[in-house]
Amino acid sequence: MPSAVRRVKQLCGHLRPCAHPEDACECCASRRQQLKAIACKNDPATGYSWRDVHDDLEKGIYAGNYGWDHAAYWGIAEAKAGVDLKEWYKTRTEAEFYLPEFKGLIDDPQTQRDWDRISTFDPMGMTAHPPTIAACKAKLDIPELTGLKPDGVIVLPDMQIVTSKCAISYAWNLPLLAPRVGLSEEELRQALYKYSHDDRLLDPKVKTYLPAVGGLTIYTFGDARKLKDEKTEVTVRVHDECIGSDVFGSDICSCRPYLLFAIEEAVKCAQRGGVGIVIYYRKEGRSLGEVIKFRVYNARVNQDGGDRPEMYFHHTEAIAGIRDARFQTMMPDALNWMGIRRIDLLCSMSNEKYEAITGAGIKVMKRVDLPDDFIKDSMRVELDAKIASGYHSDKVEGSASA
Amino acid sequence: MPSAVRRVKQLCGHLRPCAHPEDACECCASRRQQLKAIACKNDPATGYSWRDVHDDLEKGIYAGNYGWDHAAYWGIAEAKAGVDLKEWYKTRTEAEFYLPEFKGLIDDPQTQRDWDRISTFDPMGMTAHPPTIAACKAKLDIPELTGLKPDGVIVLPDMQIVTSKCAISYAWNLPLLAPRVGLSEEELRQALYKYSHDDRLLDPKVKTYLPAVGGLTIYTFGDARKLKDEKTEVTVRVHDECIGSDVFGSDICSCRPYLLFAIEEAVKCAQRGGVGIVIYYRKEGRSLGEVIKFRVYNARVNQDGGDRPEMYFHHTEAIAGIRDARFQTMMPDALNWMGIRRIDLLCSMSNEKYEAITGAGIKVMKRVDLPDDFIKDSMRVELDAKIASGYHSDKVEGSASA
Repeated sequence: MPSAVRRVKQLCGHLRPCAHPEDACECCASRRQQLKAIACKNDPATGYSWRDVHDDLEKGIYAGNYGWDHAAYWGIAEAKAGVDLKEWYKTRTEAEFYLPEFKGLIDDPQTQRDWDRISTFDPMGMTAHPPTIAACKAKLDIPELTGLKPDGVIVLPDMQIVTSKCAISYAWNLPLLAPRVGLSEEELRQALYKYSHDDRLLDPKVKTYLPAVGGLTIYTFGDARKLKDEKTEVTVRVHDECIGSDVFGSDICSCRPYLLFAIEEAVKCAQRGGVGIVIYYRKEGRSLGEVIKFRVYNARVNQDGGDRPEMYFHHTEAIAGIRDARFQTMMPDALNWMGIRRIDLLCSMSNEKYEAITGAGIKVMKRVDLPDDFIKDSMRVELDAKIASGYHSDKVEGSASA
Repeated sequence: MPSAVRRVKQLCGHLRPCAHPEDACECCASRRQQLKAIACKNDPATGYSWRDVHDDLEKGIYAGNYGWDHAAYWGIAEAKAGVDLKEWYKTRTEAEFYLPEFKGLIDDPQTQRDWDRISTFDPMGMTAHPPTIAACKAKLDIPELTGLKPDGVIVLPDMQIVTSKCAISYAWNLPLLAPRVGLSEEELRQALYKYSHDDRLLDPKVKTYLPAVGGLTIYTFGDARKLKDEKTEVTVRVHDECIGSDVFGSDICSCRPYLLFAIEEAVKCAQRGGVGIVIYYRKEGRSLGEVIKFRVYNARVNQDGGDRPEMYFHHTEAIAGIRDARFQTMMPDALNWMGIRRIDLLCSMSNEKYEAITGAGIKVMKRVDLPDDFIKDSMRVELDAKIASGYHSDKVEGSASA
């Protein structure tokens, strides 16, 4: 471990100020204050709004690449096909169809009240050229959800769940995003340039960036247009990708169980006349990816004394240098996009998510722990570590394993 | 639709020669011949092997960015943490643990026989600096798999499935990959530069590229070291990501059902003393992503006459300009890495996958259709379209819906 880092660790017991859920120690708190100062200075008016992001995308003035985390494949495909795909993607055909449920919601001025906060995508992306948002209807077949009752509309007689889903690809508003992640615009541009070598990031005239990261998908249950009525009951989970659990049911973490519990709660909310929302963010392994994740698993399992909560975050920091790269302050953009100002039930124990959501002007009425019957013994180390490090839980500290 | 493209379409009924599973029409076949000529010219000896990729990664001579499809987040995290993460990732700590099962397999010269074919990653990545491969053990809980019997080793009494999994991040060998995707090295570099603006791609001394795309994860059932014995029975599925189905059980495609069927077959193979392998490739929506995918869904569902197999591929081509960006010829690298030369049971109906695997020197003894009891009516359009366009099936053409 580099010696400067070791010194910081000795001072406060943590490696990185940015990874703390709480101002638990002085030196971290001081760096946090510093970042807040940057944010306060820049936040209110950057002079570059979502309208400008939309216009610049229409004009082709942006850094990064249409194709996002698939851009390398698109590049090869274009070279093989011998056409200009960028021209192609500007074309909307007569086959284009905009799901009335989402179109009706987002076209409403009431919905757009908080769009000035949106820093990560083009809120007009559904009808734009190039399109960065698309929504469609689907039916979900999730055999684990045995607690649902068919109603013929949201849950069909064969137990299929009716949903409307909406995929969003990112278009980062650099001036607005910078304070959101605690950096100056220049620092953000330099950081992104270092990790992409895209020279357009250094041109001050270019203010929109299509990063090569995966986007997000919103699954709604119940008619999304009901969100225009502030009295509508809203249940939300903002879920970060974990393929090992979400797809393969790996037993070391509670990701899929929490996702399933949240879908069930979202459906029940819709059945009560509300709108349930589950958003899936492409941020595998806290945006550190599976190679880091699997190395951390090994370090946890093979350490002297065996896997235990108090060492959980230490191992990620020791291996990756940081313990999280998700930047939850970006996450509420999707909620602001749908015009949400109150969440009745938030299915999440994460304080970082909670603080990001409330920081985006959204009231959270109730946060829900993952119920015990969704938790296996093998998931306890991860859950206890999160609760001990300040995750929200209704359970008394120390009793989480009970 | 641009007129040149329309003309090609009128000639052969297809938009892009690269997307064809078969040489069904003359103008496409001619372009394919042309590509094969490039491949033959470049394939045997580029003078830049997997050893050079490994060495250049150790020396830091590469284009692209450590962090891959999360690089933008890593860049921000690094700027906030104030350390050089690239230096950090070169450090391997005492907590590092290399899963003996994979280490024992890949360290064997027998396994390494076909490594010269590997063009997409560093086969030594598990012990490298920076690490690009990591493996660990896991237990899977998949309640849909009701056909399995516990044996106490691979399937535990509580029905959890024991697996070893291995995540691989890409490091593309540009000279070797170019003919693999039907381009000259210069064409490949220009294509990737256009879709990344990474100027290091234009430096001929830089021959390794870390693309900003997601990697792959290998799930093995049974002891992977058995693969060193050529007599070991091998079952394989090479699965391309589809979050809508894999995670949420969306009913329009058969992705999760095929994945589950394959895991079941892989486990049964292991229980017979063989090795089952399921590989998950991060290539959402044929590497076109969900925004394109959802637009295509809408075009399919809302077209005159309703959704039907004969229009399935047309809509993707009409909306995306291409109908596939996965480049299956990259896919067999993971199989070559594990030293596989024969697959007894391949759980896939895709001719492109089959041709890529056999083209990589691997014999396929039997291909298995997805059994009817895994297929819902809502999946028929997709399956029938694939079979009609030349996907392999034991079923007589036209009877697939029966």
